[in-house]
Amino acid sequence: MSNQLGNLLTLNTFGESHGLAYGGIITNFPAGLEVDLEAVQHELDRRKPGQSAIVTQRKESDTVKFLSGIFDGKTTGTPIGFIIENENQKSKDYDHLAQAYRPSHADYTYDQKFGFRDHRGGGKSSARETINWVAAGALAKQLLADVQINAYVSSVGDIFCEKPYQDLDFSKIDDNIVRCPDEETAEKMITRIKEIKKQGNTIGGTITCVIKNVPTGWGEPIFGKLQAELGKAMLNINACKGFEYGSGFCGAKMLGSEHNDLFNEDGTTKTNLSGGVQGGISNGMDIYFRAAFKPIATILRPQESIDKDGNSVTVEGKGRHDPCVLPRAVPVVEALAAFVLADMMLINKTRKL
Amino acid sequence: MSNQLGNLLTLNTFGESHGLAYGGIITNFPAGLEVDLEAVQHELDRRKPGQSAIVTQRKESDTVKFLSGIFDGKTTGTPIGFIIENENQKSKDYDHLAQAYRPSHADYTYDQKFGFRDHRGGGKSSARETINWVAAGALAKQLLADVQINAYVSSVGDIFCEKPYQDLDFSKIDDNIVRCPDEETAEKMITRIKEIKKQGNTIGGTITCVIKNVPTGWGEPIFGKLQAELGKAMLNINACKGFEYGSGFCGAKMLGSEHNDLFNEDGTTKTNLSGGVQGGISNGMDIYFRAAFKPIATILRPQESIDKDGNSVTVEGKGRHDPCVLPRAVPVVEALAAFVLADMMLINKTRKL
Amino acid sequence: MSNQLGNLLTLNTFGESHGLAYGGIITNFPAGLEVDLEAVQHELDRRKPGQSAIVTQRKESDTVKFLSGIFDGKTTGTPIGFIIENENQKSKDYDHLAQAYRPSHADYTYDQKFGFRDHRGGGKSSARETINWVAAGALAKQLLADVQINAYVSSVGDIFCEKPYQDLDFSKIDDNIVRCPDEETAEKMITRIKEIKKQGNTIGGTITCVIKNVPTGWGEPIFGKLQAELGKAMLNINACKGFEYGSGFCGAKMLGSEHNDLFNEDGTTKTNLSGGVQGGISNGMDIYFRAAFKPIATILRPQESIDKDGNSVTVEGKGRHDPCVLPRAVPVVEALAAFVLADMMLINKTRKL
Amino acid sequence: MSNQLGNLLTLNTFGESHGLAYGGIITNFPAGLEVDLEAVQHELDRRKPGQSAIVTQRKESDTVKFLSGIFDGKTTGTPIGFIIENENQKSKDYDHLAQAYRPSHADYTYDQKFGFRDHRGGGKSSARETINWVAAGALAKQLLADVQINAYVSSVGDIFCEKPYQDLDFSKIDDNIVRCPDEETAEKMITRIKEIKKQGNTIGGTITCVIKNVPTGWGEPIFGKLQAELGKAMLNINACKGFEYGSGFCGAKMLGSEHNDLFNEDGTTKTNLSGGVQGGISNGMDIYFRAAFKPIATILRPQESIDKDGNSVTVEGKGRHDPCVLPRAVPVVEALAAFVLADMMLINKTRKL
Repeated sequence: MSNQLGNLLTLNTFGESHGLAYGGIITNFPAGLEVDLEAVQHELDRRKPGQSAIVTQRKESDTVKFLSGIFDGKTTGTPIGFIIENENQKSKDYDHLAQAYRPSHADYTYDQKFGFRDHRGGGKSSARETINWVAAGALAKQLLADVQINAYVSSVGDIFCEKPYQDLDFSKIDDNIVRCPDEETAEKMITRIKEIKKQGNTIGGTITCVIKNVPTGWGEPIFGKLQAELGKAMLNINACKGFEYGSGFCGAKMLGSEHNDLFNEDGTTKTNLSGGVQGGISNGMDIYFRAAFKPIATILRPQESIDKDGNSVTVEGKGRHDPCVLPRAVPVVEALAAFVLADMMLINKTRKL
Repeated sequence: MSNQLGNLLTLNTFGESHGLAYGGIITNFPAGLEVDLEAVQHELDRRKPGQSAIVTQRKESDTVKFLSGIFDGKTTGTPIGFIIENENQKSKDYDHLAQAYRPSHADYTYDQKFGFRDHRGGGKSSARETINWVAAGALAKQLLADVQINAYVSSVGDIFCEKPYQDLDFSKIDDNIVRCPDEETAEKMITRIKEIKKQGNTIGGTITCVIKNVPTGWGEPIFGKLQAELGKAMLNINACKGFEYGSGFCGAKMLGSEHNDLFNEDGTTKTNLSGGVQGGISNGMDIYFRAAFKPIATILRPQESIDKDGNSVTVEGKGRHDPCVLPRAVPVVEALAAFVLADMMLINKTRKL
Repeated sequence: MSNQLGNLLTLNTFGESHGLAYGGIITNFPAGLEVDLEAVQHELDRRKPGQSAIVTQRKESDTVKFLSGIFDGKTTGTPIGFIIENENQKSKDYDHLAQAYRPSHADYTYDQKFGFRDHRGGGKSSARETINWVAAGALAKQLLADVQINAYVSSVGDIFCEKPYQDLDFSKIDDNIVRCPDEETAEKMITRIKEIKKQGNTIGGTITCVIKNVPTGWGEPIFGKLQAELGKAMLNINACKGFEYGSGFCGAKMLGSEHNDLFNEDGTTKTNLSGGVQGGISNGMDIYFRAAFKPIATILRPQESIDKDGNSVTVEGKGRHDPCVLPRAVPVVEALAAFVLADMMLINKTRKL
Repeated sequence: MSNQLGNLLTLNTFGESHGLAYGGIITNFPAGLEVDLEAVQHELDRRKPGQSAIVTQRKESDTVKFLSGIFDGKTTGTPIGFIIENENQKSKDYDHLAQAYRPSHADYTYDQKFGFRDHRGGGKSSARETINWVAAGALAKQLLADVQINAYVSSVGDIFCEKPYQDLDFSKIDDNIVRCPDEETAEKMITRIKEIKKQGNTIGGTITCVIKNVPTGWGEPIFGKLQAELGKAMLNINACKGFEYGSGFCGAKMLGSEHNDLFNEDGTTKTNLSGGVQGGISNGMDIYFRAAFKPIATILRPQESIDKDGNSVTVEGKGRHDPCVLPRAVPVVEALAAFVLADMMLINKTRKL
C-alpha cells in the first residue's frame, strides 16, 4: 500500500525532523532470529550526523529502542516496534522559513498536497526519515544470513572510482570518511567535498551496491521483479534521481551478441551484464546496481525564492547541513536493499509446492 | 501486493506467450468515464507485432475484448475484465528449447524458482505480457483527461536524439517506424536497426517520456514517491535496465547552486532539473524520465549454452523476433506511466479534508 | 486491497449477471500442483442453476475455461486466469426495472455510489459473482490436500438439523437436493421450500461448515485472525447476515468454567467450544462455523417501490429465481473457506525461521 | 495485508502485555483535521483497567502520546505515530506459566506457530492490544464528523436488554459501570458480574453497536462489503465468537415477503431489517450489528492442563483479571467500527468521476 515498504514483510514508519521521535513497525518478521542489537545500532551510527568533518554537525545520539517483538533476544514473529528520539532540534533555525519555499525542497509540494505543513526542518520531507529505514534494514540484513550487501560511494561530482567492483576490497569501505574503498579516489573525493563545503555549496554523486550470495529464485515475475523493487526502494531515497542495474544505461548501447551472458555448466554465467537477475528473478550471480544522487538542495548561500503568497523572499540555509549526502546514504542504500531482499526471500518460500 | 500493479487502482494480469489468451482485471476504476474503445485498440496496434519492417513478423490481431465493467459506453465502477486472444503461436519453433536454457533469458531462473516452466515462447516471461499493460494503461490515459503522456525513442545504440524534448514535436512520434520525432535521427536509427537485423543481431537503446499537465500534489511522501512508482513500473518492463528522471545521472555530477530550480511567483520554476517532482510529489512542471533497454536476448545466431541437466547445447533463435525492442516499447512506457499516475490521482483525492 | 480476496494468495474477479462473461485471476498460486480440472467443474456444477426443482431454472452450462497458469496439467506459479461465459441472459426480463429500485436489492445503493448502474439482472450485485469464487476455491481446495471442508444446510426457516455435526455423515450431503446430510430433516426442508416457492416467496436459513485436518499454526495474531478472515469471506456472500464459530452466540451465555477447553496430553482438547482456533491461530482441532442467510429479496409478488426519481412504482419479480439460496450456497461457503485457508497456509510458511 | 487494519487508511500496531509499550502507526490519514486529543484520551479511559469494581484492577494510566503527524493541532497528512507505555506489569505473576498452557488461551497455538513465545501476561495475544485500536479509532471517529457510533452491552450471560435500540437513550451508556443504557437491566447485569467474580469465574455476553448518519455509498461491492469489513474487525477482538448485522441470525428464519425493506419516496426504507446496508454499500439508514463475546478464559480457579512437554500441570489464574470483558470492550467495538468506516469513506471519494 501507499507509504509502506514491502509486500509481505512490511515497514511502516513515522516521524518528522523536529517532532518528538522517529520510529517504525516491522510486520510479519519471522520468529526465532537471534537479534544482534549492537549491529543494528552500528548501522545507525554509520548514518549518524556529526560523525566526520564532511557531514552535518547536528548532534544526535540516534539511539534505537526496540519496544516489542523481541523476547529473550529472539524475534517473536509479532510486530517489531521501535523508536528513535529526536534530541537536538533547533527549530528556531527554521522560523524564518515558515512561509518561505526553499528551492528544490518539498515545501511547496507539501503545501499544495496537504494544505499546510510542518515547516520545521522540512518536517516529514526531511531525509532524517531514512533513520527508520536503516533500523529496519539492519534487522532484515540479519535475517538474510549469508547474503552480503555492500554499498560504497562510486563517484562524487566528476570524480569516479574507475575500478570495477570486483577489484575493490569491501572491508575498506568504512576506512575513510567518504566510504569509497579505493583509497586514492577517496582522498580526492574528500578534498572535493571539503572545498564545496567551504563554498557553502553541495555536490552530488553515485553509490554502487553489490549483493552477493543471493540464491536463485528470488523476485516475482510480473509486477515484483527483483530489480523493480530494488529500484523503487532506491528512488524513494530523498535525493535519488536514477537507478541502473547490471549493464544499466551502458547496456542500452550494446548489441545482443555482446550483452548475452553465456552459461557455465553449473548454471552460473561467464559474464554478468544481467546483474544477477533474469526475468526479474535472481540467478545466483552477483546483483549490482548504481543509484544517482543530486546535490542537496540546502546551500548556505542566499537564493531568491517566494513565500506562500507568491511574494519574493530571499532564503539562505542556516543550521547544520550536509555538503554531500553520499557518505551517510551508504547505510541507507544497504538497508533498503536488505529489506527488499528479505521480503522476496519470504515470499519465495511460498512459490513452490 | 506481489505481481500486482497499483495501490488503489490495481491491475492483475494473466497470460503466456503460447497460451490461449492474455488478459487482466482493473479493480477500483472510477465510475462514469465514457470510454473510447477505439483509442484503446489504437494503443494496442502501436504495440502490435508485424507493424513494420523493423519489428517481429509474428502475426497477431491483438484485439482486446472488454468483458465487464463498461455499460452503455461508460465505466460502472466495478472491475473491468478484458482478454486478448493469442492467434499465431508457433509453439513448434520452441520444441528444441524445452530443455535448453537460452542465454540471458528467464528459462533458467523460472526453472529454479518454480521447479519447471512453460517453455513455449518463453511462457510467462515473454514480453507479450506487456499487451495487458497497454490495454489497461490506455483506459487509465482516458481517466487522466488533460494529462499528456508522450514517449519516444531517444537513442538506439550510440545514435542519440540530441535535441532536448522541448524542441521536439510530439505529434510526429508515430510518423516514422522507429518512433523518434526527430526525422533525421529517426532515419539513422532505422538504418541501424535494419543492419543489425540483417546480421541476426539485436540492439538496445533508450526511451524518453514526457508528462505534461499533471497538477500539483500527486505522489506519496514516504514509500510511494511519484518517481519511485514510475521507476518501479518501468523496471518491470522486460528489457529495462535503468531509469532516471529530471537531471538523472547527470545531476549526480552537479553542484547544489547549479541544480536548484528557482521559483517564479506563481509557483512554477525557472528551470526544471527536478523533473516535475519535489519530495516525491508533483509540482506542476513537466515530469520527464528516461528508461534504458538492453538489446533483446534472442539473436538469430548459434550460441553455446546448457540444458536442464548441465549438458552443452547450441541454441539458435528461430521464429520471429524483434531486432530492437524500442519502437514497440513506446506505447508500453506510456501505458505504465498512465496507470501509475491514475492510481496517484485517485489516492490524492483522499489526502486532504 | 479493496475488492480483492486474500492477502498473499489473491483473487480478483470480474463479471456482471448479463455481461459477456465472469472470470478471475488467482495470483501467487504455488507452482507444481497437479490440477484436477474435473473436480473444479464438479464444484461449479454443484452451484449451477437449474440443477433441481428447488433452485432457479436459469439455464447455464457454467463451464470454466482456464486460460493461463496451468501447463502440462500442473500449476506454473504464474497467475491463473479463467473465464465462465454467460449464455442464458434474458435481459428483457429486466427492462421494466431499468429505473425502478427493487426492495432490499442493491439497485438504490449502486446508483448512489456510482451514479448509475448496469440494471440487467442486478449487474455486478448479482450473486452470480459467486461463480468466480467457486472456481477459485476449487483450486484452493486441491492445494490444501488433506484438509477436508464440508458445508451443509443446517436450517431452512425454522426447520433445524438438530444433530451435532459429529453425528452426521458428510458423504451424504449431496444425496438430496437441499444438501442437508440428515435425510429426515432434508425432506422437511425440501417440502418447505417447495411450498414457499409455490407462494412466490423466498426463505432464509443457515449453513454450517466443518473443516478438518488443519494443522496448528494457521492464522495471524493481530488483524488476520483465522476466524476474522473466514467471517469476512462469508459476510461477503450476498445474502449472508451473520457468522459465528465455535460456541458462537451461545458462548456468550456461558461461564468461563464451562467454556474453557481442557487439554489432553497431546495438545488436543477434551472439548472444542473454541472451534479449532485459539488467539486467531488454528490449534489442530476441527474448525466449525455457521453462517446465516436472509431470504432472497426477489419475490414473485408485486411490491410497492420507487423509481430513480422517487415516483411510486410496483415491481414484481419475473424471470427465474431461487426460492432459497441455501442449496447453491453450500459450494460457495466451501470455496471461500478453502481460499482463505490456502492463503493462510502459504503465509504461515514464512512465519518461523 | 496480514496483521494490518484497513485498506487505504491503515493501522499497524505493536506491543505486548508486559513489554515496554504499545503503539501504532496510522498511515494515509487525511491532512487538516483539528484533533481533540482529550477526546482520544477519554476513549482510552473508557477502556482502562481499574475503572470500576467489575473490571480488572491492574493499574495503568494508559496515557497515549502522539509522536508525529499532528502539527499546530492539526493532522498533517503524514503518518501518525503513537505510543502508550506499560507501567504496571507484574511479570512475576506469570513465571509459573512460562511452560504451562492455559486452557482456551493462545499459549499453545503461539508456541506451535512461532516456535516459542513471550509468556508474560499472554505477550502479544493479550487483549491489551486493543488499546492501540481505541487510540486509532478515536482519531477515526473525529474524521467521521457527523457519523455517530454508539455501542452498549446488550446481554450478560442470559440477562438481555430486551428493548430495541430505538427505545434506548445512548447518552446514558456511560452512566453505569456495565455500559448498558437501560438502567434496570444494567443493575441486573452488574449484580450478576459481581456474583461471578466472587466465584472466581467469568461470564460472556453481547455488545450491540448502532451507527447513525452514514451517507449512502460507503462500502465496496465485491470483497469489501461494509458488513464484511465490520465483521472482520469485530472477529479480530480477542474474545469475539460471532457477528450479525441487521436481521442477523433471526433473518435466517424469515420469508422474503417479511424481510424486504420497502422504500419511502426519499430513498429511506420503512423497515430496516437490512441493517443499513444493501449489496455491501450503505443505504443511509442506521447500521446496526451485534457481536458475541465468550467468557474470558482466565478464571481464578485451578484447572488441569499440560505444559510444553505434555506433562500434567495445574494452572490457576493469579493477578488481576476481568470477570467480564464487556464493559471495557464497548469502546473497542466503537473504535474498530470508526476506523473501518473512515477507511471506506476515503475510498468512496475515489469511486465516481
